[in-house]
Amino acid sequence: MSTAWVSRYSQRSKHAQSSAIRELLKMTQKPGVISFAGGLPSPDAFPVQRFEQACHKVLTEEASQALQYGTTEGYEPLRDLIVRNLRRYGIHAKLENVMITTGSQQALDLIGKLFINRGDRVLLEAPTYLGALQAFNSYGAEYVSVPVDDDGLQTEMLEKPLRSGPKFMYVLPNFQNPAGTTLSEGRRHQLVLLADKFGIPVVEDDPYGQLRYEGEHIPPLVVIDRENLRGDDGFSIGNVIYLSTFSKTLAPGLRLGWIVAPPEIISKLVQLKQATDLHTSTFNQFVAYEVARDGFLDQHVKFIRELYRERRDVMLDALKEFFPSEVTWTRPHGGLFLWVTMPEAMNSHKVLETALSHNVAFVPGDSFYAHPTGEDCHMRLNFSNATPEQIREGIQRLAFAIEKHLLMSYA
Amino acid sequence: MSTAWVSRYSQRSKHAQSSAIRELLKMTQKPGVISFAGGLPSPDAFPVQRFEQACHKVLTEEASQALQYGTTEGYEPLRDLIVRNLRRYGIHAKLENVMITTGSQQALDLIGKLFINRGDRVLLEAPTYLGALQAFNSYGAEYVSVPVDDDGLQTEMLEKPLRSGPKFMYVLPNFQNPAGTTLSEGRRHQLVLLADKFGIPVVEDDPYGQLRYEGEHIPPLVVIDRENLRGDDGFSIGNVIYLSTFSKTLAPGLRLGWIVAPPEIISKLVQLKQATDLHTSTFNQFVAYEVARDGFLDQHVKFIRELYRERRDVMLDALKEFFPSEVTWTRPHGGLFLWVTMPEAMNSHKVLETALSHNVAFVPGDSFYAHPTGEDCHMRLNFSNATPEQIREGIQRLAFAIEKHLLMSYA
Repeated sequence: MSTAWVSRYSQRSKHAQSSAIRELLKMTQKPGVISFAGGLPSPDAFPVQRFEQACHKVLTEEASQALQYGTTEGYEPLRDLIVRNLRRYGIHAKLENVMITTGSQQALDLIGKLFINRGDRVLLEAPTYLGALQAFNSYGAEYVSVPVDDDGLQTEMLEKPLRSGPKFMYVLPNFQNPAGTTLSEGRRHQLVLLADKFGIPVVEDDPYGQLRYEGEHIPPLVVIDRENLRGDDGFSIGNVIYLSTFSKTLAPGLRLGWIVAPPEIISKLVQLKQATDLHTSTFNQFVAYEVARDGFLDQHVKFIRELYRERRDVMLDALKEFFPSEVTWTRPHGGLFLWVTMPEAMNSHKVLETALSHNVAFVPGDSFYAHPTGEDCHMRLNFSNATPEQIREGIQRLAFAIEKHLLMSYA
Repeated sequence: MSTAWVSRYSQRSKHAQSSAIRELLKMTQKPGVISFAGGLPSPDAFPVQRFEQACHKVLTEEASQALQYGTTEGYEPLRDLIVRNLRRYGIHAKLENVMITTGSQQALDLIGKLFINRGDRVLLEAPTYLGALQAFNSYGAEYVSVPVDDDGLQTEMLEKPLRSGPKFMYVLPNFQNPAGTTLSEGRRHQLVLLADKFGIPVVEDDPYGQLRYEGEHIPPLVVIDRENLRGDDGFSIGNVIYLSTFSKTLAPGLRLGWIVAPPEIISKLVQLKQATDLHTSTFNQFVAYEVARDGFLDQHVKFIRELYRERRDVMLDALKEFFPSEVTWTRPHGGLFLWVTMPEAMNSHKVLETALSHNVAFVPGDSFYAHPTGEDCHMRLNFSNATPEQIREGIQRLAFAIEKHLLMSYA
């Protein structure tokens, strides 16, 4: 190739890798495949009619503003709606604490841009969200990982990694992606105290917090940090940056997420966002506001909870019925995923090959580790996108693929 | 502030500055101010009714896909529409050469991410687009600048800066922002030859190319590069990356731009984009496709050309009528801006203060230089957003502010 471009890539480009999941998703588009691979909401969860009314209203009454350039912080009525919604989760943020991002992925990118110098360490859960690894990789992050068990990040193992001086901790306390586990309240307190003691700030990623199907709400880290350690001054200070999104409650196609942080951090992130994409789609922000307002979002979240609780239960029942006894899995209290552990001798990539030949897909576990070994025996299963009938059929097919490999591993 | 975050900013954050223009735009929101400051399209140029039909169609017939996650490259029918539209400008790209970005600003950010290491030089026009400076700053770029005259970038001054080994050249050949000038055909050939001779690639930013109000279309650099220097193989190779956007032809609130480049570069940019925001709003891509299809975009661009040509002419007439003879300005053949030069002793920031007290705004020239001196005597005037009546009135007010400072400079 004779172009002068190719010899000119930055150091950053070395870290550019296509997500295994997204490449896999392309393969799973073919008809007949039952996919537990993506993190896709169910199309049944999109409030289409409400979207239509919202588009009509926005274009009839506010087109001049909604189609024009907007402010980098985001559309104020939408930020205000977010502030009001956060209150019921105990998060008493003000308008100045909230900025809109082009999906939560952009929040991760901007945080990487603001804090990570090449070679800086980030403390992660193992396993953790693949998209965060991708975002931080592009700024040259190194990682230190702490394993997750049924009660989430094992905080009793935190002290040594915290002493190694990571730039920040990245944690998904609710219905973790990929593990499906939830950080217990005791551990949340311990994590916040340790973070404060060692002066290591925390990024709390909470895309699924609203989608709880059983058990009691547990206060977010950002609330515990503020109530236990800071004054009640509405986030002028704080050790925790909190992220969430409309992708799982309204629609991912809008690309609308948000960051809650102290005003000084927001101001820096806004400056970086301006250089990144000027602002998030004004039109989508106006439409999302019209869809969510007047209590619709709450009512719709209740509907989604019912929809996904049923699918989770169908998957849990099918796993119990069809999976061999050597295999275990997590029992998520919310969110979109559960995490399957096969016997250690088994390789999830090889199981995936067999599974695909039986027209069923999942994501092999090692995609979710900072330092994948290729020798992984886990699979992430999504239960939000397939219908209950597909879930039962897909788990049966998957059980068949696992049995084949189990037999081989005994041979 | 007791939070641990603030001591932890990356080197990158030092370059985060709020755009003077965007801060200024906030001041110009107050009623009564006539603003020539922003780069805002006229709301009269938004095809609102067509948007409404498009939203209705997309939500009635394709909601499951349009509200769901999408591919990072972009929605294929929209990319295909762009490919077909590019042909009439002589650009024979294929689908694999085109990716969708979250506005052209994201294209600049991704190019910075892929190519700029801290301390790398970028060759720019002086003046140049402020948003490009912001995007490249956040990756630690240094700059070497070549001045612009009435025929655009002075290519006869290019050789020495090219020898200094910049990573790439960033050029706006058509109706430049902020200068309003157009790179002549002879200079385009010279630029492409020199770029090839020195092995320095080119980023061609063309947000306004379709908005030509007089004169003949001049082939883009990407076409000259391919036709004169490469084989006719549909952009598998090429020294020029070409950027454009729907912000000026449909609506900026959609945040929809695109990049045309060799497939290997596109593949790298797609990987980086995935880590940045996963993909651009699926919904907006579906809607833009429905709006633009079946020849509507062409027809609508004709309408915008008429609308803005009139406004440009009204501004040029008013400048001639009201501005003092010591002041000169460019005569743009298209786009949204013209560039005013006051006598050297005058300071555009001070003139702006007076202008704001007379309820009229513009952007002082030194925002558009890589190395601003604070001693600038230029102003950028936008003529697309204000109505013809406002333009006449605003130019009169501005003339009054300039006269005041002229008198002071003689005193």
